[in-house]
Amino acid sequence: MGIKVLGIPMSTCTARVLTSLLEKEVDYELVPIDMGKGEHKSPDYLAKHPFGQIPVLQDDDLTLFESRAITSYVSYKYKDQGTDLLRIGNVKETALVGVWIEVESQQYNPAILPIVYQLVIVPMYGQSPDLAIVEAHVEKFNKVLDVYEARLSHHKYLAGDFFSLADLNHFPFTYYLMKTQYASLINDRPHVKAWWESVSSRPAFKKVAENMTLA
Amino acid sequence: MGIKVLGIPMSTCTARVLTSLLEKEVDYELVPIDMGKGEHKSPDYLAKHPFGQIPVLQDDDLTLFESRAITSYVSYKYKDQGTDLLRIGNVKETALVGVWIEVESQQYNPAILPIVYQLVIVPMYGQSPDLAIVEAHVEKFNKVLDVYEARLSHHKYLAGDFFSLADLNHFPFTYYLMKTQYASLINDRPHVKAWWESVSSRPAFKKVAENMTLA
Ligand SMILES: N[C@@H](CCC(=O)N[C@@H](CS)C(=O)NCC(=O)O)C(=O)O
Ligand SMILES: N[C@@H](CCC(=O)N[C@@H](CS)C(=O)NCC(=O)O)C(=O)O
Repeated sequence: MGIKVLGIPMSTCTARVLTSLLEKEVDYELVPIDMGKGEHKSPDYLAKHPFGQIPVLQDDDLTLFESRAITSYVSYKYKDQGTDLLRIGNVKETALVGVWIEVESQQYNPAILPIVYQLVIVPMYGQSPDLAIVEAHVEKFNKVLDVYEARLSHHKYLAGDFFSLADLNHFPFTYYLMKTQYASLINDRPHVKAWWESVSSRPAFKKVAENMTLA
Repeated sequence: MGIKVLGIPMSTCTARVLTSLLEKEVDYELVPIDMGKGEHKSPDYLAKHPFGQIPVLQDDDLTLFESRAITSYVSYKYKDQGTDLLRIGNVKETALVGVWIEVESQQYNPAILPIVYQLVIVPMYGQSPDLAIVEAHVEKFNKVLDVYEARLSHHKYLAGDFFSLADLNHFPFTYYLMKTQYASLINDRPHVKAWWESVSSRPAFKKVAENMTLA
């Protein structure tokens, strides 16, 4: 049957999943979900994803949601092909990949998401961004990026001197941030900038980014 | 050398880590961090945890932070002893444990944390809780719990009919919530209530909870 991803290419969480599939050289079919028509809140869809969000991954009779759970699943199931994203076999490296996956989820994402949401998503609906929210989160994000700058001055990537799932999970929100005036938050920090240039020049990312066009 | 946990017993994220160590029957030493004196922001501590939070786990020369990364590390490293928290060997069950670990992290925790923070932590510092924040998050949390009620009406635990790390990670914040008037959010939903009774009666939880006393 093969793998199906239910989602849309411009959605950050869908893009995260597609990037992991490309890095792992796994074929997939993208099944578009019409969010404008509320398809993600239909009973049929809610049976797959009880929170009514995208993406969902279907692998035969297994239905998964939550993008970070899916990228971990893909990296683990296909550990013997494509890019080695989890360093399985080296308990310490795997542990550090785990730490920096959680840093993205608990520290980086809560700071960057509201900035991207206000400056990129809200205007798509013809509304004005709430600049107080943006400012509050820029302050938070600056502190997170200071930690990243220090970390990346010692290691080429977040978990060590190897690209991993921890770096990959950062891709979609950072990609959209780089289209705003706050790209400077990344560009003004030399090690974060070099990391982002390395991460964003990977063929898998470039392929996914091609379809991340904001309607 | 053995495992050291840097933290304090009443901290939710420390309690999450200690519970996983007890479930896995791993000996550890708890090294108290004096947050009142700002020990978690000292250069020495920041070298271990660049975000200056608790807990940290040290396993010989490996230093880890982020409580959910640590509980996964412990569950994986000691997969052959204690409670089977990850169901390694069964790719599908492991994948579903991963999904519900992420649900705790992305859906449950962002809703419950501000409620517990306002009603339990803020008063400890002699301040008044912001009830508007509480109300907004109770609304969010109700929606999350509706999904849990449906899920737990089909399965005894979140990932299936087995206790796993996904259930475990919910323990500390839910434990504190149950000491507030919002315990009714759990108790009014029969399947969530039964799940919580089963989870919170485990010896590991009871042992950790004994020391979760609010100063
Ligand atoms: N934590 C989820 C978040 C998914 C998410 O927020 N998806 C957005 C699109 S990028 C969505 O479906 N929003 C619609 C909604 O929440 O109703 C994940 O990582 O998969
Ligand atoms: N995402 C972190 C959160 C850790 C956290 O928030 N710890 C609190 C105590 S429960 C803390 O250290 N707060 C002090 C601070 O953030 O400065 C984890 O899961 O370990």
